[in-house]
Amino acid sequence: MSIKVLASELPNIPWQERPAGCDRYIWRHTGNPVIGRRPFPGARSVYNSAVVPFNGKFIGVFRLDYEEVLPAIHIGHSDDGLIWKLDEKPLPFLSCPADKRETEYGYDPRIAKIDDAYFVHWCNGYYGPTIGIAKTRDFKTFEQLENAFLPFNRNGVLFPRKIGGFYGMLSRPSGPGHNAFGDIFYSASPDLTFWGRHRLVLERGASRWQRTKIGGGATPIETSEGWLTIYHGVMDTCNGFVYSAGAMLLDLDEPWKVIAKKAGPILWPETDYETVGHVPNVVFPCAALVDSATNRLAIYYGAADTHIAVAYTTVDALVDEIKKG
Amino acid sequence: MSIKVLASELPNIPWQERPAGCDRYIWRHTGNPVIGRRPFPGARSVYNSAVVPFNGKFIGVFRLDYEEVLPAIHIGHSDDGLIWKLDEKPLPFLSCPADKRETEYGYDPRIAKIDDAYFVHWCNGYYGPTIGIAKTRDFKTFEQLENAFLPFNRNGVLFPRKIGGFYGMLSRPSGPGHNAFGDIFYSASPDLTFWGRHRLVLERGASRWQRTKIGGGATPIETSEGWLTIYHGVMDTCNGFVYSAGAMLLDLDEPWKVIAKKAGPILWPETDYETVGHVPNVVFPCAALVDSATNRLAIYYGAADTHIAVAYTTVDALVDEIKKG
Amino acid sequence: MSIKVLASELPNIPWQERPAGCDRYIWRHTGNPVIGRRPFPGARSVYNSAVVPFNGKFIGVFRLDYEEVLPAIHIGHSDDGLIWKLDEKPLPFLSCPADKRETEYGYDPRIAKIDDAYFVHWCNGYYGPTIGIAKTRDFKTFEQLENAFLPFNRNGVLFPRKIGGFYGMLSRPSGPGHNAFGDIFYSASPDLTFWGRHRLVLERGASRWQRTKIGGGATPIETSEGWLTIYHGVMDTCNGFVYSAGAMLLDLDEPWKVIAKKAGPILWPETDYETVGHVPNVVFPCAALVDSATNRLAIYYGAADTHIAVAYTTVDALVDEIKKG
Amino acid sequence: MSIKVLASELPNIPWQERPAGCDRYIWRHTGNPVIGRRPFPGARSVYNSAVVPFNGKFIGVFRLDYEEVLPAIHIGHSDDGLIWKLDEKPLPFLSCPADKRETEYGYDPRIAKIDDAYFVHWCNGYYGPTIGIAKTRDFKTFEQLENAFLPFNRNGVLFPRKIGGFYGMLSRPSGPGHNAFGDIFYSASPDLTFWGRHRLVLERGASRWQRTKIGGGATPIETSEGWLTIYHGVMDTCNGFVYSAGAMLLDLDEPWKVIAKKAGPILWPETDYETVGHVPNVVFPCAALVDSATNRLAIYYGAADTHIAVAYTTVDALVDEIKKG
Amino acid sequence: MSIKVLASELPNIPWQERPAGCDRYIWRHTGNPVIGRRPFPGARSVYNSAVVPFNGKFIGVFRLDYEEVLPAIHIGHSDDGLIWKLDEKPLPFLSCPADKRETEYGYDPRIAKIDDAYFVHWCNGYYGPTIGIAKTRDFKTFEQLENAFLPFNRNGVLFPRKIGGFYGMLSRPSGPGHNAFGDIFYSASPDLTFWGRHRLVLERGASRWQRTKIGGGATPIETSEGWLTIYHGVMDTCNGFVYSAGAMLLDLDEPWKVIAKKAGPILWPETDYETVGHVPNVVFPCAALVDSATNRLAIYYGAADTHIAVAYTTVDALVDEIKKG
Amino acid sequence: MSIKVLASELPNIPWQERPAGCDRYIWRHTGNPVIGRRPFPGARSVYNSAVVPFNGKFIGVFRLDYEEVLPAIHIGHSDDGLIWKLDEKPLPFLSCPADKRETEYGYDPRIAKIDDAYFVHWCNGYYGPTIGIAKTRDFKTFEQLENAFLPFNRNGVLFPRKIGGFYGMLSRPSGPGHNAFGDIFYSASPDLTFWGRHRLVLERGASRWQRTKIGGGATPIETSEGWLTIYHGVMDTCNGFVYSAGAMLLDLDEPWKVIAKKAGPILWPETDYETVGHVPNVVFPCAALVDSATNRLAIYYGAADTHIAVAYTTVDALVDEIKKG
Repeated sequence: MSIKVLASELPNIPWQERPAGCDRYIWRHTGNPVIGRRPFPGARSVYNSAVVPFNGKFIGVFRLDYEEVLPAIHIGHSDDGLIWKLDEKPLPFLSCPADKRETEYGYDPRIAKIDDAYFVHWCNGYYGPTIGIAKTRDFKTFEQLENAFLPFNRNGVLFPRKIGGFYGMLSRPSGPGHNAFGDIFYSASPDLTFWGRHRLVLERGASRWQRTKIGGGATPIETSEGWLTIYHGVMDTCNGFVYSAGAMLLDLDEPWKVIAKKAGPILWPETDYETVGHVPNVVFPCAALVDSATNRLAIYYGAADTHIAVAYTTVDALVDEIKKG
Repeated sequence: MSIKVLASELPNIPWQERPAGCDRYIWRHTGNPVIGRRPFPGARSVYNSAVVPFNGKFIGVFRLDYEEVLPAIHIGHSDDGLIWKLDEKPLPFLSCPADKRETEYGYDPRIAKIDDAYFVHWCNGYYGPTIGIAKTRDFKTFEQLENAFLPFNRNGVLFPRKIGGFYGMLSRPSGPGHNAFGDIFYSASPDLTFWGRHRLVLERGASRWQRTKIGGGATPIETSEGWLTIYHGVMDTCNGFVYSAGAMLLDLDEPWKVIAKKAGPILWPETDYETVGHVPNVVFPCAALVDSATNRLAIYYGAADTHIAVAYTTVDALVDEIKKG
Repeated sequence: MSIKVLASELPNIPWQERPAGCDRYIWRHTGNPVIGRRPFPGARSVYNSAVVPFNGKFIGVFRLDYEEVLPAIHIGHSDDGLIWKLDEKPLPFLSCPADKRETEYGYDPRIAKIDDAYFVHWCNGYYGPTIGIAKTRDFKTFEQLENAFLPFNRNGVLFPRKIGGFYGMLSRPSGPGHNAFGDIFYSASPDLTFWGRHRLVLERGASRWQRTKIGGGATPIETSEGWLTIYHGVMDTCNGFVYSAGAMLLDLDEPWKVIAKKAGPILWPETDYETVGHVPNVVFPCAALVDSATNRLAIYYGAADTHIAVAYTTVDALVDEIKKG
Repeated sequence: MSIKVLASELPNIPWQERPAGCDRYIWRHTGNPVIGRRPFPGARSVYNSAVVPFNGKFIGVFRLDYEEVLPAIHIGHSDDGLIWKLDEKPLPFLSCPADKRETEYGYDPRIAKIDDAYFVHWCNGYYGPTIGIAKTRDFKTFEQLENAFLPFNRNGVLFPRKIGGFYGMLSRPSGPGHNAFGDIFYSASPDLTFWGRHRLVLERGASRWQRTKIGGGATPIETSEGWLTIYHGVMDTCNGFVYSAGAMLLDLDEPWKVIAKKAGPILWPETDYETVGHVPNVVFPCAALVDSATNRLAIYYGAADTHIAVAYTTVDALVDEIKKG
Repeated sequence: MSIKVLASELPNIPWQERPAGCDRYIWRHTGNPVIGRRPFPGARSVYNSAVVPFNGKFIGVFRLDYEEVLPAIHIGHSDDGLIWKLDEKPLPFLSCPADKRETEYGYDPRIAKIDDAYFVHWCNGYYGPTIGIAKTRDFKTFEQLENAFLPFNRNGVLFPRKIGGFYGMLSRPSGPGHNAFGDIFYSASPDLTFWGRHRLVLERGASRWQRTKIGGGATPIETSEGWLTIYHGVMDTCNGFVYSAGAMLLDLDEPWKVIAKKAGPILWPETDYETVGHVPNVVFPCAALVDSATNRLAIYYGAADTHIAVAYTTVDALVDEIKKG
Repeated sequence: MSIKVLASELPNIPWQERPAGCDRYIWRHTGNPVIGRRPFPGARSVYNSAVVPFNGKFIGVFRLDYEEVLPAIHIGHSDDGLIWKLDEKPLPFLSCPADKRETEYGYDPRIAKIDDAYFVHWCNGYYGPTIGIAKTRDFKTFEQLENAFLPFNRNGVLFPRKIGGFYGMLSRPSGPGHNAFGDIFYSASPDLTFWGRHRLVLERGASRWQRTKIGGGATPIETSEGWLTIYHGVMDTCNGFVYSAGAMLLDLDEPWKVIAKKAGPILWPETDYETVGHVPNVVFPCAALVDSATNRLAIYYGAADTHIAVAYTTVDALVDEIKKG
């Protein structure tokens, strides 16, 4: 194994070997979707969610749509990262912690562990979508920080450590509604409250599969080759959109610089649970688990805005593909 | 049984008991779809249709798309409300009975029995969509009345009796094309020809699942708790629309007043026949049968603009859910 | 004079003779605009308004925009039909008289005298624009009737007498916003409350100057040749819209039948007060005074959504032009 | 057999008899899709492609999307017209042969054999989509001709012989993007380089299934009844588009004149491989094989922008249906 | 004078010297507009028109809008090129000369003299806008040729001689309506009937003033420095469009190659007759007269889609500016 | 004089007394526009600009459009604040100071003096519009800071002192293009580099004149009644937009709280230089001078995106109007 991953070992990472006959460097979990429709009464679907190792087991923050299709963020627990038990009460996040106004919605959460704290961050409704952040050490009590940016912003993704003395975040500024535009930017902060030094990372349109909009996905993984960054790209077709997963390497010290990028998507809608659902043709990655002993990688992604699915690869295989371009 | 339904008994109402393991107050017929693609040669699909008891059996008015995708309204007959035989000739409705101009199209019919006559009403093409009405006693001869409104209007739903001395109708004024807007209004008429006293009933957007547009569904059912009214709501997603069924109670005497409304949809696209078809992700209710002896309810709905399906519940269970909000 | 006008004599009708050198059948008042910007403190502009003879003088209902650009309807008085004194308090019309809800807005009023009562009618805000109607005999107390139609409707224009035993109204059903579509329909009512028997009168697009949308203008004038009907038409250009005035004759007994129509507009934006203002390039007629002794015609129109202007012609000249096509 | 087909015999045409119970004049190959996802590593899908008999076997030009979703045109070989082996290198077509500029994209190819040469023609990117043409005799070396038209044009379809001394081509002028408009025109050329005498053939909207846009499909087949022409039509629904196949007869000498046209589509999305995929609900015919000894017809079509499928009928059955209207 | 103009001498070219205090290389005629509103009864305005010397005087083809706003093309005569007498009957051009169908509209004409014939060419309605061509020697009888291209095309501009043995034309393919897109192409023809060898000349967006669309203007003028080509460019603003005139030099032998181009517009809307009218903010050049003895240039342009105006410069001054970039 | 203004005295503030007959609290400078078209050769127009007192005279930063319509920011000098001399070289601002990339554009500048430094801030092109900031003490050398926000943002307006220990800025997040949406937010920063604690200040739509979008205008003026804040609002009409100036008071310590707001606009397009120009109907305030000895106020605003104009009022009169609501 040639690539060094700067992360903990995770011997109980969910894993299946590559199936015989598979000619690709990434393959789906055979038990997909790992969470399907109606995880508990009153809940409609779970998707676009993030997981982390916690105390030898796994914990996750989940985008859960109720029957009313109101999205909120729920905690879930799992022994193996595949069978999940979701809390039936949402996390009590606010529109803005300063004004105590109840939030209109919260969706598409991610988690980053920085030092010994966990930072949940998500698309938070404050007169438009922006990036909410909350800090926890035990997933029981949360301290909600200021929203990071002005609206309209989606797909905020924190880096797992300070870079050059500053926290770093990817995000996708855009407009209200499901606009067709959107590029990925990097912003820095001394304190997770005030943000600046905004830099463009990646413009949409580099390839056709991502010509409509793009956005951050999983927490970037630190490797000797750069930040391994899994994201999503969207293309329009002659009848609707297709959401796929892509991958790139960002510079370790100046993460707004793209070192290498896989030209095509690494995963795109092909199965029933990805092509049919509340939103057809969606593969939307929000988290990845990695084991630095084996470099195994388990990618969690929302499928068709209805299910959660898992795909497997290794850091080595994925970086190798990225370098091929 | 606590709720009184002011309707006839219907001992042969289609019915299946709630399946074991089902945790909801409404469940699908196991033989769905009850009508699939190509009911007879030259017919492409049947959906968004209405049925009534008639002479101990059942009769229905069906939206039938021919292979040319021209929609028209056909009569159908059934002994049990589940196996249907459709007439292969459409009902001969006109664009406007006064000018004898052949109609451009007719679709999404409903039936209301008022006193001892049946009133078929549908979306009728007269320089734009409006609401056509025709009266019959035998489903063999029909007297077509004036169109109720100016275009552009869809989803007209007559009440089954006069209210305060006037006929009543729900409708959804809008514009040409499949616009994103649309609220439900109530209008009154002394004679089914002249209409006025228009009142707003429900604005779209009360919940996210119905934030794009809404429209009347089945003929309202008179109960001791109010008019039990099943309707449809539409939401946009990041890739297309989703059509679902909702339910509310309207005031018996002033039916433009909403007494209570179920916050979430009662049924939404989850099965293959609802998520895949000519129009993906559509549940579109147009009729409901009720048996006042048991309060059983059989809801008929179009699925994916391709099939007709049936779902079961009871008036008591549904009103109970509506009151929960 | 060959054409008989079925209206009162009006010896003090505003009038100027055709200027020397003018080669057209219609000419502008030399003192235009007759009302300019800021008619009184707090008022921004007055336009799209209607006037009638009253007790030997003139009275009018005016669309007045306040500085906040909120439109309301004000009464105005004039001795000569040219110099106007506006009431500074608006008419207290409601969104819907049945629910006592204050209206959101009222604009573009017309007046019709039917028998010995005056009917003000205007674009009234009731969950979208529709046609409000109010009855008065003294312009001091008003009885507001039901809104005539479901939204979305604009440019309602009442006929000045019953036709075939029914009141008649032109209107332009459309959608919310300033949509590009809109045709003129005729509707009948036994009682000014219930409306039906809707008939298409004129589709937009008959000529290029009116290809985008059209709408009724002045109260139709009864003549031996038919209802002389002044309306407006709108065209799109490669940079914005142009609103012009047109004229047609409708059948006396079946007023949805167009007997003859002037192919081109009779008046279009050419002067400073018509081409420049709050809305550039607008000529929008809402009323016409006629003197049956001389057949003189004084047409009142809004100019650039900022001013009120007057143009002169005679019934004979205008009908003659209409018949030329 | 009453209809004379002016084409070669093709005894090894792919064929299955009409299945028992099928009540239509056209039926699907039971082994559909004949090419599925990922025909070789790095290739994502193959669809909208054309085939011809060649040296007793079959050869085809295929629209192949790579993983990056960049479309290119690849040669494929088959012994039986059903099992295909695709070249992994694309045909080296240029944006414009005169300027040697590499093309941005090439897609939706057709082939016509005229005299003893084969003309591949396709949607070629030259500052917008236009129609590229290349001539070959052996499918090894190609001479690329001038692009036929100015952009924006798609769905060019050559006739298989000169008509009145001129080459003929159907095409669909439109605009950039997936616009909603598009009619089929016929153009003539003395030399395949200069084109003129443009004539409208068919406007969209003749029936509802083709009201949004239409375009040529397979190379027209010369019969004693006229040019048998299979094309596609697109309709909008209340949630996306549906692409279907249609058929018509064009005049042998003046092929811009439609002799007869099937009112409805001959094939529309009904199966899983047509309703679900990269683009839901697409049936897109690009080629047809015919055997003049039996008048058997094998139609090749793209399905859901993801697969290639085959349907069978006979010239006699299809012409008979077209004549029914 | 350094630049050689390959055109006739024109001693009576309209001319005014540069006014004192003018710091630009181009200046307006002080008597502008040379044609205003209503040139004769029934005519609304004249603009976007072309003129040529003829028999020692001047003749022009004019876009004339009637009161109905229907555009047609009229001949006009002038002794001095400034005072014009327009024919009141339009040129009888057809939609397509082959089918004798009357045209829907004709507008924005140009004239090119090639050898000893004059070719009027204009935007001609044939199921969408395309380029009509008609040949004349005396401006009394015209032979209408085939339309040059498929719709949708506008702003066809013929070169005044064959280039490399072929006729040449600039045009701007686009879509129906006033779309925001449009680039200039060059096409060649052996016979003015069949067109091909299409080449991109200039993409919109090279500068902000022309970022929305561009199109050919005056007949290119042959000079020793290349084809001097005056064209128009359009920009969007935060409230509507602005049309301006630009200039460039094209290669004499390969006129699709731009030798040099003025970065900014040479003329843009500043005066009353350019900023206010039927379409605000339009400067639209369609012709230029040149005198090869003095290199004086008189540019004719439509102003605000309402007037015709003239501006003066010299070939030397303009080429000098173009070379500055 | 009741209101205390916390600013310097400015005895040479531009000033004219209220004209006789003027019934409003604000009046225009009689010499408007103070800067017209073409301030120097190659410059097209100057508008939307800001001025400050400097060394007993005045200095300004001006939005200047070149003939190519490329906007840049130029310094200007004036003795009296009315007659201006503009530098012909633009300020050399960058897209992002960290990457040295030349900016695509800069427009709509403001200036705030904080302590003894001047901060120019403007709409800066960095992969979309955002807020650039540059610091100077002499208007000769500038230190460009980081862009304040992620795109898409316009109309950044700095407060003239720290509030609660933090710098404060109003801005209007939106999307690319001239979208119809936009509300005003407040953000805080410890260092003018990192920004956070975002709070909504004012939503568009509070009155009709500002229902489309709103944005900050002049640097807020500190008074004993709160921050006197002049801003702009935009409304749509049936034919284009209208930009007007409004005024409100913000809380001194929590400036995201609106204390009082004038319901209507204080100034809107009425004169020739406001209604006609590159963009019709624009009044766009960007600066205000105040003299704390007299409370005189001189408001600078762009007119029709073509001119700069000045209007006068007093702090007392304006605050009085704001309090009336």
